[in-house]
Amino acid sequence: MNETILTPILDLLDVIGIAIFALSGAVIAARERQTFVTMGFFALVTGVGGGTIRDLLIGAPVFWITDPWVAAICLACALIAWFTPVTLWQGKLFDLADGGGLAAYAVLGSAKAIAYGVPPVPAILMGIITGCVGGIIRDVVAGRPSIIMQPELYVTAAALSAAITVSGMTLTQWLALPLPDAWIWGAAFLSGFILRAVAIQWRLGLPS
Amino acid sequence: MNETILTPILDLLDVIGIAIFALSGAVIAARERQTFVTMGFFALVTGVGGGTIRDLLIGAPVFWITDPWVAAICLACALIAWFTPVTLWQGKLFDLADGGGLAAYAVLGSAKAIAYGVPPVPAILMGIITGCVGGIIRDVVAGRPSIIMQPELYVTAAALSAAITVSGMTLTQWLALPLPDAWIWGAAFLSGFILRAVAIQWRLGLPS
Amino acid sequence: MNETILTPILDLLDVIGIAIFALSGAVIAARERQTFVTMGFFALVTGVGGGTIRDLLIGAPVFWITDPWVAAICLACALIAWFTPVTLWQGKLFDLADGGGLAAYAVLGSAKAIAYGVPPVPAILMGIITGCVGGIIRDVVAGRPSIIMQPELYVTAAALSAAITVSGMTLTQWLALPLPDAWIWGAAFLSGFILRAVAIQWRLGLPS
Repeated sequence: MNETILTPILDLLDVIGIAIFALSGAVIAARERQTFVTMGFFALVTGVGGGTIRDLLIGAPVFWITDPWVAAICLACALIAWFTPVTLWQGKLFDLADGGGLAAYAVLGSAKAIAYGVPPVPAILMGIITGCVGGIIRDVVAGRPSIIMQPELYVTAAALSAAITVSGMTLTQWLALPLPDAWIWGAAFLSGFILRAVAIQWRLGLPS
Repeated sequence: MNETILTPILDLLDVIGIAIFALSGAVIAARERQTFVTMGFFALVTGVGGGTIRDLLIGAPVFWITDPWVAAICLACALIAWFTPVTLWQGKLFDLADGGGLAAYAVLGSAKAIAYGVPPVPAILMGIITGCVGGIIRDVVAGRPSIIMQPELYVTAAALSAAITVSGMTLTQWLALPLPDAWIWGAAFLSGFILRAVAIQWRLGLPS
Repeated sequence: MNETILTPILDLLDVIGIAIFALSGAVIAARERQTFVTMGFFALVTGVGGGTIRDLLIGAPVFWITDPWVAAICLACALIAWFTPVTLWQGKLFDLADGGGLAAYAVLGSAKAIAYGVPPVPAILMGIITGCVGGIIRDVVAGRPSIIMQPELYVTAAALSAAITVSGMTLTQWLALPLPDAWIWGAAFLSGFILRAVAIQWRLGLPS
């Protein structure tokens, strides 16, 4: 297991993803008129849940335990949700931001898995898990029907970003292409995000 | 923590268990007319869920992250469930196959825990967890009443296989008996499987 | 990650917390007229669930896997619940005992996290998780509304104990005060326990 320094781009994607997901978790608690403690719990679970499972699975130190700020960011998002009207965090704009977090997390999760020497298929799954699992835990604990049970193009968007990240990085390494990783990550992020945006706009779903 | 090479018998039990459980997960998603993405998710969670928890608990590298094929087998099972009629995977025959996977996983989980130096009582629990937890996570995420809440002889069958494996291997080592591990595993597998088969045939349950 | 010897006080808090939580888990299964196997499962999940998540997150060996007795204590609690009338384990007295387990676990979880070099904010969260997560998993698997979704002062009591533990130990170290850890733990335990007891007596809740 070769420890690796992930670049600043990934770090930025990470913070954005955490904050958006933490907000979405806190808002769900706020909608059900929960207390601040519950909102903090949901902000944390939704913000770091997916990355936590990923780190445990690939054998990395859990990112928000070693980092002194991540948990504080999640609790700050809960504070923001507590002091602002819930309606501010609903509607299409927030769904789009959530789609951005989803794609960012999928790219980050896959790239980190590859950096830890995980083979391609599990590495793609690590990206999907990083993007989707926080929301699934949130829904299961809140007793809501989880996104995984709906035909929406949500998990699929994460899968697209993760698959492009992994196949791009693997091919670049095999063929020794002079393609910087940042380009692959950008393309992977945009593909997943656009697919999710299109799905939100025209309410696209998968066949069942 | 002494890494050990588990024998080919355990490897075969492992693949059979994964495939049967993955199928059962995918079929539950198919029954509720879910998309392929959801079926893949359930195939994976059900197929590798129990073994994942076991590996995290005993401090082993998670088996399907280091192995490039296990995750692909689960997704292949989801594909099979997608392209075949659901009715093919229902009824007593499939329940029996599921019982076989349960007993196989219970033996495998206990044997692996012992190989990692886990004491007897936790080692038995590792066998039970390996056999049952994938299905429990599947049911919780799908919002179904979980097998653990029903009087059926299901967890009990896993407990029987795990207890025979652990007591057999521990006694053999203490008394320095010339009994090969494969015999113990075979006896443990058959005991759990037969108990489960009898329970399916005559709808036996535990007293409450 | 510097392994540390936690003192006998923490060990005692630990066993008390495990036994109380294991009983509460087994009793919930008993109320729903479940079998002994299900009661054992709930005793185990509730008794060791929070500490398991904590150990996985901070990278410690999972405590009940290396210790041969903890799992046996949980199963013994399930036996006790099986052979005694359920009504014995209901009412205010048992709620108080549960509050004691909650505060004890919160102190223990935070202290262990600090011993493993976890920064303050995550260390407080480790205390909360150790105290509350076993009960949350129990409720989610049983399909009951979880304590985290109710305005009761429950998670808040754990948060108080954890915050006092972490701030006390951190300040003592920074300012090189001659204050023994046992005093901090005692004060932290009492604060959380009294807050919980007051909340039970006068049915206090947080504003939503």
